[in-house]
Amino acid sequence: MSDKIRVGIVGYGNLGRGVESALKQNPDMELKAIFTRRNPKDIVLKDANIQALHINDIEKYKDEIDVMILCGGSATDLPEQSPAIARWFNIVDSFDTHAKIPEHFAAVDQAAKEGSKVGAISVGWDPGLFSMNRVLAEAVLPEGKHYTFWGRGVSQGHSDAIRRIKGVKNAVQYTIPIEEAIEKVRSGSNPDLTVREKHIRECYVVAEENADKKAIENEIKSMPNYFADYDTIVHFVSEEELKQNHSAMPHGGFVIRSGKTGDGNINHIIEFSLKLDSNPEFTGSVLVAYARAVYRLNKEGQSGAMTVFDIPLAYLSPKSGEELRKELL
Amino acid sequence: MSDKIRVGIVGYGNLGRGVESALKQNPDMELKAIFTRRNPKDIVLKDANIQALHINDIEKYKDEIDVMILCGGSATDLPEQSPAIARWFNIVDSFDTHAKIPEHFAAVDQAAKEGSKVGAISVGWDPGLFSMNRVLAEAVLPEGKHYTFWGRGVSQGHSDAIRRIKGVKNAVQYTIPIEEAIEKVRSGSNPDLTVREKHIRECYVVAEENADKKAIENEIKSMPNYFADYDTIVHFVSEEELKQNHSAMPHGGFVIRSGKTGDGNINHIIEFSLKLDSNPEFTGSVLVAYARAVYRLNKEGQSGAMTVFDIPLAYLSPKSGEELRKELL
Repeated sequence: MSDKIRVGIVGYGNLGRGVESALKQNPDMELKAIFTRRNPKDIVLKDANIQALHINDIEKYKDEIDVMILCGGSATDLPEQSPAIARWFNIVDSFDTHAKIPEHFAAVDQAAKEGSKVGAISVGWDPGLFSMNRVLAEAVLPEGKHYTFWGRGVSQGHSDAIRRIKGVKNAVQYTIPIEEAIEKVRSGSNPDLTVREKHIRECYVVAEENADKKAIENEIKSMPNYFADYDTIVHFVSEEELKQNHSAMPHGGFVIRSGKTGDGNINHIIEFSLKLDSNPEFTGSVLVAYARAVYRLNKEGQSGAMTVFDIPLAYLSPKSGEELRKELL
Repeated sequence: MSDKIRVGIVGYGNLGRGVESALKQNPDMELKAIFTRRNPKDIVLKDANIQALHINDIEKYKDEIDVMILCGGSATDLPEQSPAIARWFNIVDSFDTHAKIPEHFAAVDQAAKEGSKVGAISVGWDPGLFSMNRVLAEAVLPEGKHYTFWGRGVSQGHSDAIRRIKGVKNAVQYTIPIEEAIEKVRSGSNPDLTVREKHIRECYVVAEENADKKAIENEIKSMPNYFADYDTIVHFVSEEELKQNHSAMPHGGFVIRSGKTGDGNINHIIEFSLKLDSNPEFTGSVLVAYARAVYRLNKEGQSGAMTVFDIPLAYLSPKSGEELRKELL
């Protein structure tokens, strides 16, 4: 019998495939099954050892899978799936609807405690690695200010908003941090930055034939919440160009804390940044490291909901405490 | 009776003063006493509520102090003090003799367990925050390579080595990372970099009157381990210039992991960096955040030695779990 950590993936979109890819780099873990709401027969998997199963049957596998990695969306999938599945399995999810984190945490906490399982929520890079750096930097430099910049990267929400405009066939929107603003923050001057001063929005739009491009551009640029508060650049491109040049999903960003010590004249900058060729591949890699952690924490007898703030870094690594202290401390 | 965390400082040099300064920014903690090997009467403290006491009397204060922050040196102070004091108090130290971390950990672990205390060792920024980023980034991107660059900052060890040369009155040595090497790493090309390709060493030297400057410069540049493997720049300056321009203790650096996912063609860069106006002020701030953590962990019944790998980030912050999830996740 294998002593690998047996992992299931719930939801097989971009993120689910990112998790599948990440698991191959971690020899102490193995993917056992993918659970889907679709007809499992429609899921094509390269590896014959991995089953595609219907999500309704998930409970039957509770003795065969150690951790479920939930790869559904935060709007409707995870609020329902995470508590339901945490009753039977250790779980990791990437819930990112910020305003609803307290209620999601409470729901997962209750279910996981009832099932004596561990549920790590809101794992990824933001929320996730970026949040960790906000907490760490604020604890070390309490008198200071933190700044988060996102991008250059594709925002699915903004791309979707453009696609809903009449006359638009397809669209990709890049969020781009403004280098000048980052440099101002790095200087330690603690600037007050408006939304417009922090990010640019750049849109690649495929218009339908005979569509009024001027009207589309105006509608994008004046859209409240999404674009009106930003400097927005709109490019019209062909469907072919969009596919060829804008179908990768790069992302990244910067978390910078600028703080002072002493009598307030000594400056310090703590900066964490990511430059990712593929957002789902990287997010999947983070989820997998946390799957190892929740498995181990549960083995030690812990249960309930946790976030990245609650889990020691040692649990993420396959190395022992001795190895970590010797090689990486 | 105050419910603040009562802190003692052991050793009152640059780092001890950095801790004193950091404690003023943390209203949930208070400095109670400074312990010294010198005559306590020679220690001048601004605040009349803080006592200067002899280190030989430390055990008498075991009911009056919750955490001792040890600010001595790694060569001779901490190997002796940390285990001795961890028997009576929760401690935090910044032990940084890398090769001896395993034995230091073992000694503190035994003493702290015997005394039912928590001892956090090797806390600071390297070892410390940099180490945390090495572990985190390696766990997330197992197929990759990490690079650590230090500086621009003063190296006490290298400055001392120059001061020991005949004809040298005083000296300050800056370690400077080579921007070109950092850019190569950020490109994702995973370069193999020699010692010389990563850092420059720049020395500001005050020579004695009539000293042979050419001979001093040669001796510096050819010094094995310290300078021979680097491109080294030597400037001769006056004692006044050294005091005026080179008595601050700036430091910092970069930890960069470059990794690949998928079939090996998707690159990701994780970067953590620090730019510090004062190394002891910042290191002191890190020690104080970990003092809060060891106090809380011990309150929960934990004991033994720990490192930054073992302590969840939530313990560093004065905020509750609810506040952290709401404000920073």
